[in-house]
Amino acid sequence: MSDFLNAEQLEGLDAYWRASNYLAVGQIYLRSNPLLKQPLTLAHVKPRLLGHWGTTPGLNLIYTHLNRVINQYDLNMLFIAGPGHGGPAVVAQTYLEGTYTEFCPAVECNENGLLRLFRQFSWPYGIGSHVSAQIPGSIHEGGELGYSLAHAYGAAFDNPDLIVACVIGDGEAETGTLAASWHSNKFLNPARDGAVLPILHLNGYKIANPTVLSRISEDELSALLYGYGYDPYFVEGDEPVRVHQALAQTLDTIVLKIRDIQLEARRSGHATPPQRPLWPMLVLRTPKGWTGPKFVDGHRVEGTCRAHQVPLADFQQPLHLRQLEEWLNSYRPDELFDESGALLPQITALAPTGHRRMSANPHANGGAVLRPLDLPRFSEYAVAFDAPGSLRAEATRVMGRYLRDVMKNNLTSSNFRLFGPDETASNRLDAVYEVSAKTWMEPLEPDDVNLAAEGRVMEILSEQVCEGWLEGYLLTGRHGLLSCYEAFIHIVDSMVNQHAKWLKTAAQVPWRQPIASLNFLLTSHVWRQDHNGFSHQDPGFIDLVANKKSDVVRIYLPPDANCLLSVTDHCLRSRDYINVIVAGKQLEWQWLDIDAATRHCQNGLGRWDWACRNDEDPDVVMACAGDVPTLETLAAVTLLREYVPDLRVRVVNVVDLMVLQPSYQHPHGIPDSAFDDLFTQDKPVIFAFHGYPALIHRLIYKRTNHENFHVRGFREEGATTTPFDMAVINNLDRYQLALDVIERVPRLGDQVPAAKARYWSTMERHKLYLIEHGQDMPEVLNWQWTHVDR
Amino acid sequence: MSDFLNAEQLEGLDAYWRASNYLAVGQIYLRSNPLLKQPLTLAHVKPRLLGHWGTTPGLNLIYTHLNRVINQYDLNMLFIAGPGHGGPAVVAQTYLEGTYTEFCPAVECNENGLLRLFRQFSWPYGIGSHVSAQIPGSIHEGGELGYSLAHAYGAAFDNPDLIVACVIGDGEAETGTLAASWHSNKFLNPARDGAVLPILHLNGYKIANPTVLSRISEDELSALLYGYGYDPYFVEGDEPVRVHQALAQTLDTIVLKIRDIQLEARRSGHATPPQRPLWPMLVLRTPKGWTGPKFVDGHRVEGTCRAHQVPLADFQQPLHLRQLEEWLNSYRPDELFDESGALLPQITALAPTGHRRMSANPHANGGAVLRPLDLPRFSEYAVAFDAPGSLRAEATRVMGRYLRDVMKNNLTSSNFRLFGPDETASNRLDAVYEVSAKTWMEPLEPDDVNLAAEGRVMEILSEQVCEGWLEGYLLTGRHGLLSCYEAFIHIVDSMVNQHAKWLKTAAQVPWRQPIASLNFLLTSHVWRQDHNGFSHQDPGFIDLVANKKSDVVRIYLPPDANCLLSVTDHCLRSRDYINVIVAGKQLEWQWLDIDAATRHCQNGLGRWDWACRNDEDPDVVMACAGDVPTLETLAAVTLLREYVPDLRVRVVNVVDLMVLQPSYQHPHGIPDSAFDDLFTQDKPVIFAFHGYPALIHRLIYKRTNHENFHVRGFREEGATTTPFDMAVINNLDRYQLALDVIERVPRLGDQVPAAKARYWSTMERHKLYLIEHGQDMPEVLNWQWTHVDR
Repeated sequence: MSDFLNAEQLEGLDAYWRASNYLAVGQIYLRSNPLLKQPLTLAHVKPRLLGHWGTTPGLNLIYTHLNRVINQYDLNMLFIAGPGHGGPAVVAQTYLEGTYTEFCPAVECNENGLLRLFRQFSWPYGIGSHVSAQIPGSIHEGGELGYSLAHAYGAAFDNPDLIVACVIGDGEAETGTLAASWHSNKFLNPARDGAVLPILHLNGYKIANPTVLSRISEDELSALLYGYGYDPYFVEGDEPVRVHQALAQTLDTIVLKIRDIQLEARRSGHATPPQRPLWPMLVLRTPKGWTGPKFVDGHRVEGTCRAHQVPLADFQQPLHLRQLEEWLNSYRPDELFDESGALLPQITALAPTGHRRMSANPHANGGAVLRPLDLPRFSEYAVAFDAPGSLRAEATRVMGRYLRDVMKNNLTSSNFRLFGPDETASNRLDAVYEVSAKTWMEPLEPDDVNLAAEGRVMEILSEQVCEGWLEGYLLTGRHGLLSCYEAFIHIVDSMVNQHAKWLKTAAQVPWRQPIASLNFLLTSHVWRQDHNGFSHQDPGFIDLVANKKSDVVRIYLPPDANCLLSVTDHCLRSRDYINVIVAGKQLEWQWLDIDAATRHCQNGLGRWDWACRNDEDPDVVMACAGDVPTLETLAAVTLLREYVPDLRVRVVNVVDLMVLQPSYQHPHGIPDSAFDDLFTQDKPVIFAFHGYPALIHRLIYKRTNHENFHVRGFREEGATTTPFDMAVINNLDRYQLALDVIERVPRLGDQVPAAKARYWSTMERHKLYLIEHGQDMPEVLNWQWTHVDR
Repeated sequence: MSDFLNAEQLEGLDAYWRASNYLAVGQIYLRSNPLLKQPLTLAHVKPRLLGHWGTTPGLNLIYTHLNRVINQYDLNMLFIAGPGHGGPAVVAQTYLEGTYTEFCPAVECNENGLLRLFRQFSWPYGIGSHVSAQIPGSIHEGGELGYSLAHAYGAAFDNPDLIVACVIGDGEAETGTLAASWHSNKFLNPARDGAVLPILHLNGYKIANPTVLSRISEDELSALLYGYGYDPYFVEGDEPVRVHQALAQTLDTIVLKIRDIQLEARRSGHATPPQRPLWPMLVLRTPKGWTGPKFVDGHRVEGTCRAHQVPLADFQQPLHLRQLEEWLNSYRPDELFDESGALLPQITALAPTGHRRMSANPHANGGAVLRPLDLPRFSEYAVAFDAPGSLRAEATRVMGRYLRDVMKNNLTSSNFRLFGPDETASNRLDAVYEVSAKTWMEPLEPDDVNLAAEGRVMEILSEQVCEGWLEGYLLTGRHGLLSCYEAFIHIVDSMVNQHAKWLKTAAQVPWRQPIASLNFLLTSHVWRQDHNGFSHQDPGFIDLVANKKSDVVRIYLPPDANCLLSVTDHCLRSRDYINVIVAGKQLEWQWLDIDAATRHCQNGLGRWDWACRNDEDPDVVMACAGDVPTLETLAAVTLLREYVPDLRVRVVNVVDLMVLQPSYQHPHGIPDSAFDDLFTQDKPVIFAFHGYPALIHRLIYKRTNHENFHVRGFREEGATTTPFDMAVINNLDRYQLALDVIERVPRLGDQVPAAKARYWSTMERHKLYLIEHGQDMPEVLNWQWTHVDR
């Protein structure tokens, strides 16, 4: 190969790479003597050696070379470090770019700053060992692996000028989410969206094993990547000069190819929509822990999994200390820093400047570029009816019309997308297709509907990829909502955990601006997945969410369509939360007009005075949260009117689950006095709940009356059966709730035997009818709320 | 193409396919008139139309053709239906094979049986609409998509005679787990394991979208599958005769190729271990809903996503009823059934017989082929020491030595494997490598260790693939354990949900025999992931598990190595459970000798009399669950000895979390009287817990003394810091626990101000020391239990 870089360019790149590696090793090892002005002693070394060296030199190499092409072509580039364990590399790069010092002025560009930089890394009350929200330029915590590529695509959507360089570790590449994310290129429109540059870094090893992709033949690997829809460019080597030359030349080729693709797609006058191009990508094969110790204690380290974490660790051995010193000196720090510890100007001059620095890319501080959505008035989408329980509607279909106009109002801003794993229509949000189709870059066939290259509804049958896209989209300052079958949202439990961690950490970082909330609509829920059966029935995602920090999570269970509208509007306006909305899609009775719904949702819970009589001093409180439990509760109220006409029943509906917690545990928590007013201090409370009953018990265990709460909810009894029978087999049905009341109101003691007998004969009739007719008894099917004067 | 099948073979295959499609459509639609002896009327049609037609004819086609090659080559074959929504197809096949009638004699082989078969499908108290544990021959519930291929590989491991035919829907193929599972072939040893035959069924559509893999070019698709390490054979068409010919010929070729691969690998006298071959696979492209209605209401249905569920549904329109009748008659039922409704003998003769029927394959009823493990005496691996707190040990390393000998004792039975996402050594179970390496079929390099084609430790960096493999392995009658970093086990939350559902359902199926439990070791846990920081800290998996049915789940928190041994032995002997063991890997103080540990684990919880004085009538109960909480509790006890010498403290340690629940909620729950004896009826209980405190509250809310429980646990405060500081920032540390005691014992009221002052000054000292030295104060680092006479 003739030389692509001249000697000066080559030396510059190599010096920059050495500087970044020096800074990384320093972070892992040194607590003092940062410039090695004194011979290295044990006292200079940290007592706890943490961090991952193995991936670090590769990340530094890539970052350094990306800087070159950024300068060369004035690129707007974002960097995602899939192997986020290589925190020291990314921190080193932000320091070299001056960004770290801008954000943390105490980490100056001198010896004192170096000392702070080194010492804070993986030091108590310092910074973590992985790339995190603390690090400028990052939108991706690399602790849990697998989400980099989906995040990268999410960042690239609707950012036509952006190139998202995404380093994918070959370990990470074995995870499910990453493996599925490659196909994201089928949903990237080169005319409208930015580019993603996947950089598969084959350093050959994970913690303790070779990686699959590093050991299959290059023939298979090329085919695999081509099969994913990429044109892979390979750079390989363990000799720095040759790798610098090859990498620089290859990145040039790739950047030009991306430009060509985009220019072609954006040329005016296309007769047909843009088609998916074959996007270029890079495969870089370099040794794990490259430039680190080649052998330690007689074992080969560089280029093996022994380089994964801290290759030298036993500093009771003087030899190790000498090896560390040699290692650090191999980067020739005297050629990188001046006497004061400042980087030499010829080094810093190689970094991009201003917002062209990847660590200062505005998109990586999404809140700073966030524009609020232009939201229509949700009240205009309200379902109108005369009285509670006089009309049935599909809540999510109503919401869909609102979302359609959210989409419409923000089309020109290009900052709202709807995500779902092939379920948007199934979840009855398809009104949105009136204004925007689903993104689809593959060939169309005659019967295809609602598919287009410029679509803004994102559907791939992977909850994980949808979630990753949405996170990437939000973290770069846009808005979105993911709708999902309730049971299958557990597939992204761990991703949601990590996003919650990001939000918590980011909130403590002064320069991070609030981003739009991560909004979930969980529908096709446990009580109305009677047709799909047990595998589709699980309401436990809200339990997972409830374990998160209270300043991050919100859980809403709107009982009807108008409440769903109010809650959705609220969630789309909110910032820095994870909002979970659980609402059904089936035709169900409607309860609150839009004004009442709005007030109810603002309060988070409330008495439904219209549903009860004589409830000032109630015998019992019937509480409910969720649409089906609300229905069953109100049906139980009608039964009780007949069974015990003089019973004083109060109905309380809960929309915002977090109001139940004490106010010192959650900001939405209502004061104990208000709680006592609503739920009384000593009356039985029959609580019909959408999810697992234990969640209510744990939210209220500090409340005065908690001993008297009797919660009905899902108890893992699922089947393919009727909607009402789902309630029956979980003891949430109206007959059970009515019996619960009679059993728990002391003055009705003498009625209990008769009530039990009535209950069991009703259940027998129910079951016989069900088995005979395959559907519910007419009195259940045709039940309707009847209003009585209070 | 010259004809591969002669006319008789062709007619036989087609008739069998038609019969199965007829039976499938009948299941979806008919409640009576199963043989269409009368003209079809509305009364014959089910009131609720459920099921998924779209995938059904393809599944039937594949199954029918697999039967042919089973007969032709006397194959031992298992069938996995990835698109398990096509339940009607698989049920139809088991009925055609006679297996369904054998297992459910009421479903006879006559008109009456047909009626039952049709009516029970998706009918209340009948069978579900997806393939499930109720269906003979299945090990795979297809409700949640994505796990078929991992299950298939799990089934094939150590079953050298078995071919696992795995149909993968093109929708399912978009999921993360499926996408990652293709690489499972890198872990399949053709000499020792069976074969997996992936059948990618491209019917083109999901619920409401085309699929990615069906729309990329055949060029890209071939490359992708070759890149995954397969040799794909393509069969494509919408004309039955041509597809039958091509499919039959291609399956022949594939089966012979599998045989060749196996013969070559199993030839004696190999100088080198077997290498990974290029396994054949099938890509079948046929229309969605093939043979169903081509048009409905003017819309094309066959070959589009409109065929996904029930293509005809509006039977208020007489035309739909006529279309349904025509559709059913298009299969020519009069040529398939005799007058009595029995299948014609020439149809049934085409099915394999006995255990060659895929629906009667013994491997699919794993419990029937299960052999117990030969387990070493766990007490022989015990850590020996003189007194509690006199020795430190790494619990999982001790367990690793035990697992090594479990592996050794069962090597010849080939029925135990250890699974982990690249973490077996990190989790300190590497003693197992003394007897078995990690499975690795790729080329080896000089520095590789513990990798071999015959290895029995399974490591790929995907929790999902590991979990899927293990499930498949267990469901086919073998044993295993998955070790995982605690935080990242959330990645498989949804898979574990589905396995729990399978176990619950299977327990109600009389002919299903108990299988070995799904065993998890969660280590590198929240309290000792201080080096990796917040992203690696989450103890919430046990919350998820605790929501499952009590007859399925068990959660163990052994406080030390000897308890861990006892618990592990118990879990490996158990059946039909999901056992979660949480235990640390770091050097920690040991408490119980092996006899005491065994008794303690048998009881599930108990007083640690040696740890307290005067505890007959305690002032306070200090409870703990988990190794780090136990350490902090005992450290608090030593502090309290100094602070309040006359305090009467009782220490209760909990190993088996489920003992805390009432006995009517969980079979392990201890009686209320025993609970009251241990925890008192009215004394404060300071409970130091491994996980989120809410879990303890929800387990004990029915217990007498629950109001007085004060639980400390993880409160989402994570960081890269020291182990002790992790406890501090979550208020679980010894100083906090000691203060909690003083604050809650009424007679110590006057000591509270001084105790608080002492606490805050200690915390200040702690933080200063930490920031200065980067490690814990000497009194913490060097703390050791000191025994005193009672």
